Amino acid sequence: MRLVEVKPVDRNILQQARKKMDNKTKPLGSLGMLEEIACRVAAIQKTLTPFVREVVVVVFAGDHGIVEEGVSLYPQEVTGQMVANFLRGGAAVNVFAREVGAKLLVADMGVKGELPSHPALINCKVRSGSRNFLREQALTREEVETAVRKGIEIASEYGKDADVLIAGEMGIGNTSSATLLLSGVCGIPVKVLVGRGTGLDDTMLRHKAKVLSQSFHRRRFDRHDPFSLLEAFGGLEIAGMVGFYLGAAALGKVFVVDGFIATAAYAIAKEIEPLVKEYAFLAHLSAEQGHRRVVEKLGLFPILQLGMRLGEGTGAVLTVPLLRAAVRALSEMASFDDAAVSRAKKNIKIFQKTLDFFGKYAII
Amino acid sequence: MRLVEVKPVDRNILQQARKKMDNKTKPLGSLGMLEEIACRVAAIQKTLTPFVREVVVVVFAGDHGIVEEGVSLYPQEVTGQMVANFLRGGAAVNVFAREVGAKLLVADMGVKGELPSHPALINCKVRSGSRNFLREQALTREEVETAVRKGIEIASEYGKDADVLIAGEMGIGNTSSATLLLSGVCGIPVKVLVGRGTGLDDTMLRHKAKVLSQSFHRRRFDRHDPFSLLEAFGGLEIAGMVGFYLGAAALGKVFVVDGFIATAAYAIAKEIEPLVKEYAFLAHLSAEQGHRRVVEKLGLFPILQLGMRLGEGTGAVLTVPLLRAAVRALSEMASFDDAAVSRAKKNIKIFQKTLDFFGKYAII
Repeated sequence: MRLVEVKPVDRNILQQARKKMDNKTKPLGSLGMLEEIACRVAAIQKTLTPFVREVVVVVFAGDHGIVEEGVSLYPQEVTGQMVANFLRGGAAVNVFAREVGAKLLVADMGVKGELPSHPALINCKVRSGSRNFLREQALTREEVETAVRKGIEIASEYGKDADVLIAGEMGIGNTSSATLLLSGVCGIPVKVLVGRGTGLDDTMLRHKAKVLSQSFHRRRFDRHDPFSLLEAFGGLEIAGMVGFYLGAAALGKVFVVDGFIATAAYAIAKEIEPLVKEYAFLAHLSAEQGHRRVVEKLGLFPILQLGMRLGEGTGAVLTVPLLRAAVRALSEMASFDDAAVSRAKKNIKIFQKTLDFFGKYAII
Repeated sequence: MRLVEVKPVDRNILQQARKKMDNKTKPLGSLGMLEEIACRVAAIQKTLTPFVREVVVVVFAGDHGIVEEGVSLYPQEVTGQMVANFLRGGAAVNVFAREVGAKLLVADMGVKGELPSHPALINCKVRSGSRNFLREQALTREEVETAVRKGIEIASEYGKDADVLIAGEMGIGNTSSATLLLSGVCGIPVKVLVGRGTGLDDTMLRHKAKVLSQSFHRRRFDRHDPFSLLEAFGGLEIAGMVGFYLGAAALGKVFVVDGFIATAAYAIAKEIEPLVKEYAFLAHLSAEQGHRRVVEKLGLFPILQLGMRLGEGTGAVLTVPLLRAAVRALSEMASFDDAAVSRAKKNIKIFQKTLDFFGKYAII
């Protein structure tokens, strides 16, 4: 089953963009990772004057049956209460989206109970939360496929006029789901990835680790079949994000992956279609304990490292001004010739260690 | 001689701000370093609804006599050429300032030769560049004091209506000056701090290290007299920035320290008046090799880590949207009570490692 068609980004523009960047009035390579960001956005947008104007953020929400096992610090009803908070504009992601001028939508993929209708709420409820994966498969194949397809449709419908697409998430219990998905797809032991989520203490963390390890061994999945991982561990909001990333890449749009849970969705999407990597940037390194290992394994560079662990898309939204600054450097800075600035005395490939460091995040 | 009077920030507001932040609809501590930033800005501004609207960037420019010794990849005339580029709006800092809506000015503290007059150019030329510190003291006591006083005046005059003040710098050769100032003030060996600046190759780096080590031993200074360090090693733009930071703190304004050279100015300013620390944020960890050691020594937290090493204030300008987002979280987010969101089941002091990590950057 081919869900979407994703094309590689334009290699020719990528090389031209790097040459253009090297002629800007600054020491070679001195904007660090921003140079690689600008050039890749150019390659994605197929232009040497890339731009980041419209940004769309969709917060995917869903509940998790595993919460019955006491793996979260917050009661399950917080998922729906926070969706109401998003719709009233009171959550962190609302504040940050206002700051960067991004449009914010919420997709109900599987929140328990009824949500009031609202112009910013996209109703895609597949079922009222996933099943408890300690006891049974979290989702059926059909539920997973429906959620992924809805995510693709959301990207196509709400993202088609945007320059950057961001998926956030809300779902009490979803670090549990994400931990098992990442363990499965990356082949990293559950005990390395399990973390405190919204803030478990040591006792609760030990309990969560036990529940997750048991669940991992009890469930059936094929680690080379990403859909089977979603069947085993859910959740519906994560499956929606998988589709959203696939849809964004198919549209040829830049997308920014937020934190730990978003990285799980990204890892699944990349397993389905490896070319999504060329359209993806990682917003930040989460304080959730397993994130660093996963980020290294996936070869992602976190733009921010602020010790955040909130989700909702907050980290990704904060990178928008940095993306804008990066592409504007490529589009607007004067070249040495434009500005009649003298060049370096030697044209050497400098700061080899820095270049090597960022080079490993270059897609080609 | 007391140059300025700096008051401690408001401890009472700081504690109230932390309490307010803990009641926002998010897991405790989950915005990481942004929470500490927001609370400290609140304490500086003496309000629980802090704000970052107006931002003023002053790029301090000056030449360095040490350039005669072949320590830089770029010829000396680039300083003046880049000032012209700033005034035409073509440099990286111009692009970034436009992106964040900051006002940009250039202060000529000691550029060689005449600069054309321009509404955004502040003429504070103390002399046409510093002297070659391999052979003689870079500046006289009077030149240092004049440059520092002019920096204080610039902060008072151009910064009084701003919420955040940023100093950038332009001066071919100024990593050499900054390296020796930091070595002197932090007590870290020159050979640990010397780096590639705008991009020296290995041969040029060895030469620079030799010149700087010789200079460090030949010059007279008292490491507990920060003015004597500026006399020994210059430069005029760095002395201007020292004054600017002192002036910003005296005005009770937030200021953001850019990269390696700005950190040298900050270290000197802090030696003159330790309370400047309460008003300072560090923008980023520069790729210049010695920066990490210095940052650790000074107890600063770099907001960004993007491998940048451009100067001009570019890193500091990029943090403005993050500061704005942080303070808006404190000012605008709903509390648990506002939003009728259920609280955590246990009110535990969570993520102790994260809290400890950021705690060391808390001023109290």
